[in-house]
Amino acid sequence: MSKNRVQIFDTTLRDGEQVPGCKLNTEQKLVIAERLDILGVDVIEAGFPISSPGDFDSVVAISKLVKNATVCGLTRANQKDIEVASDALKYAKRPRIHTGIGTSESHIVHKFRSTQEEIIVRAYDAVAYAKKFVEDVEFYAEDAGRTDNEYLARVLEQVIKAGATVLNIPDTTGYCLPDEYGAKIKYLKENVKGIDNVTLSCHCHNDLGLATANAIAGVQNGARQIECTINGIGERAGNTALEEVVMILKQHPYLNLDTGINTKLLYDTSLLVQRSMGMIVQPNKAVVGENAFAHSSGIHQDGVIKNRETYEIMDPADVGVTESSIVLTARSGRAALAYRAKNVGYDLTKIQLDDIYPQFLKFADHHKEVNDEDIQHLMELNQISKTRIAI
Amino acid sequence: MSKNRVQIFDTTLRDGEQVPGCKLNTEQKLVIAERLDILGVDVIEAGFPISSPGDFDSVVAISKLVKNATVCGLTRANQKDIEVASDALKYAKRPRIHTGIGTSESHIVHKFRSTQEEIIVRAYDAVAYAKKFVEDVEFYAEDAGRTDNEYLARVLEQVIKAGATVLNIPDTTGYCLPDEYGAKIKYLKENVKGIDNVTLSCHCHNDLGLATANAIAGVQNGARQIECTINGIGERAGNTALEEVVMILKQHPYLNLDTGINTKLLYDTSLLVQRSMGMIVQPNKAVVGENAFAHSSGIHQDGVIKNRETYEIMDPADVGVTESSIVLTARSGRAALAYRAKNVGYDLTKIQLDDIYPQFLKFADHHKEVNDEDIQHLMELNQISKTRIAI
Repeated sequence: MSKNRVQIFDTTLRDGEQVPGCKLNTEQKLVIAERLDILGVDVIEAGFPISSPGDFDSVVAISKLVKNATVCGLTRANQKDIEVASDALKYAKRPRIHTGIGTSESHIVHKFRSTQEEIIVRAYDAVAYAKKFVEDVEFYAEDAGRTDNEYLARVLEQVIKAGATVLNIPDTTGYCLPDEYGAKIKYLKENVKGIDNVTLSCHCHNDLGLATANAIAGVQNGARQIECTINGIGERAGNTALEEVVMILKQHPYLNLDTGINTKLLYDTSLLVQRSMGMIVQPNKAVVGENAFAHSSGIHQDGVIKNRETYEIMDPADVGVTESSIVLTARSGRAALAYRAKNVGYDLTKIQLDDIYPQFLKFADHHKEVNDEDIQHLMELNQISKTRIAI
Repeated sequence: MSKNRVQIFDTTLRDGEQVPGCKLNTEQKLVIAERLDILGVDVIEAGFPISSPGDFDSVVAISKLVKNATVCGLTRANQKDIEVASDALKYAKRPRIHTGIGTSESHIVHKFRSTQEEIIVRAYDAVAYAKKFVEDVEFYAEDAGRTDNEYLARVLEQVIKAGATVLNIPDTTGYCLPDEYGAKIKYLKENVKGIDNVTLSCHCHNDLGLATANAIAGVQNGARQIECTINGIGERAGNTALEEVVMILKQHPYLNLDTGINTKLLYDTSLLVQRSMGMIVQPNKAVVGENAFAHSSGIHQDGVIKNRETYEIMDPADVGVTESSIVLTARSGRAALAYRAKNVGYDLTKIQLDDIYPQFLKFADHHKEVNDEDIQHLMELNQISKTRIAI
């Protein structure tokens, strides 16, 4: 059975870049956009053109640069926003306008001081207007996570009629649980007339730590686009992390879902975004954190040394990390010491290991980590020679 | 309907502390243990007593200190480990021994070079032996996430017979999807004889970013204990984050699940662990990150100023954060500027706002953020006086 393709819609340069401290200049944005294109994302959301002249210029420059991906600009549901976005996207090979409006009671009543029926008209009009400029129009139903399903289905039926090609179902506040978000997508798949001719998209926020799980529940229930950012950056607690959803789909082949991402570039892309934005991921960040492939407890180290798959479900090389590390601390056992010594060129005999292990423990008790140089020093102190060239 | 209580089992001082760079001395551990006790966790996993004399001493000291929580020590499935743990826990008001063994094919074949039947015997014997020392014995089936359900059920039936009070179902490698992990818990709830007299526990790892979602799927399907750490620290990509699961249960009252955590202490506890371990969370960390309640885009800021619930599903005060912040950048609108000016004591008229807004934008274009002092300065330049005392 051939795999279903899930489109990866990267919004690092829009939802990610609007975060406190993450502001980039146009040149930095171009470097990231080019990398995203090489990484293989399907859509690059390049900015919100009407928000500022700087953002407009960046969307123009990115549109000129990007070779493969669709370039997308965000708008609100009004003509001025749409005109400006269309203008910014005019050099794009594959332009997409991303327009929409809030559909939850909270948004309709408090933000727009409007009514459900009026919102449907505004949604329809915005999509129909965008369609005058570009073929590819994505509609977002802001706060869809807290929008009543029946009303949401009515909104979506109308924007499909207006020509929308992609329907974005944002869990704007990050409130949904995965089973709820999955059920919402399933409901829409089953109840919206014309849904099979368009793509449903997941845009999830991480306020409760569920953005990745919600996006996966979405594609398990019929969505075929995930909106995400490198390192999961974004408003408040951020968005779905691109590297996490991509690796989940890759490592669970029985889901029959696939992306076009070259996973070997994930780690380097993460570093690029960290450095450009000064937004460092924590060491225990999934897939790209410094410790993501580091084994420290003695029990785990023994397991990994005997058979990598005991504790590793991904080959670090698949995401561009050179190798998983056996970190030497006071909790490491003999097997770990022997393994690391071997890595720097010493094949220790059992007797040598018995001699050295207590010295190692004593040293490790006073240091957080024991590195290759320390091992070398320990060997020299004990007059042990290298048995081969280090690899 | 009264809510079901979910036990919070904190393993910051065991699974968290064994991580590269997170080593603590006994005094630091005592400060954290005391805070966890005040926070209201049900169980504190204090260490792995046989792993080192330092760890042993810490478990002893924590056992003496903790007033309310159960204090737990980790062991492998052998007599020596169990004896040492029991010794370390002898001063605890409520001691628990946490023993177990790998049950997946990968663990049985590669790590133990053993057979399924032999593993059942070792599991039974370990629990029965621990039961000689303490009433409360938790059994972990390491790599349960990749263990065949039918065999797992057989193992668990035997350890229940041996006297286990809690059954821990670790997704050791972080491979499970939430629906799979939930289905595993449901299967065990329905197929293990005697399961209703014991507590099922979730211990999930975050290698694919799913640790929080998996633990929630576990309690939705009948588990009643979650193993977690402050800030989600732990081996590799870490464990379920305590602050995330606690707030998910609190913010979804219809799940009818409750914890004993005083959520107002979450933020301070997160800071304490960050500082003690030198393990800083990223700004977009859910619930406790620096940006978790920061609104930056103009659209979001307007929404929040009109009605907080438009974009906020948690009151920041509920987790001990003084208030959500409206971060002023070049993307902020007039409403945000007026709001922040008001916070420092200026009630701007519409005319004043019209005058100042372009100056603000110009300033903001050259700065990542505009702070209270900058606002003050802007007002003084325009000879606008405070209308009231700042709050």
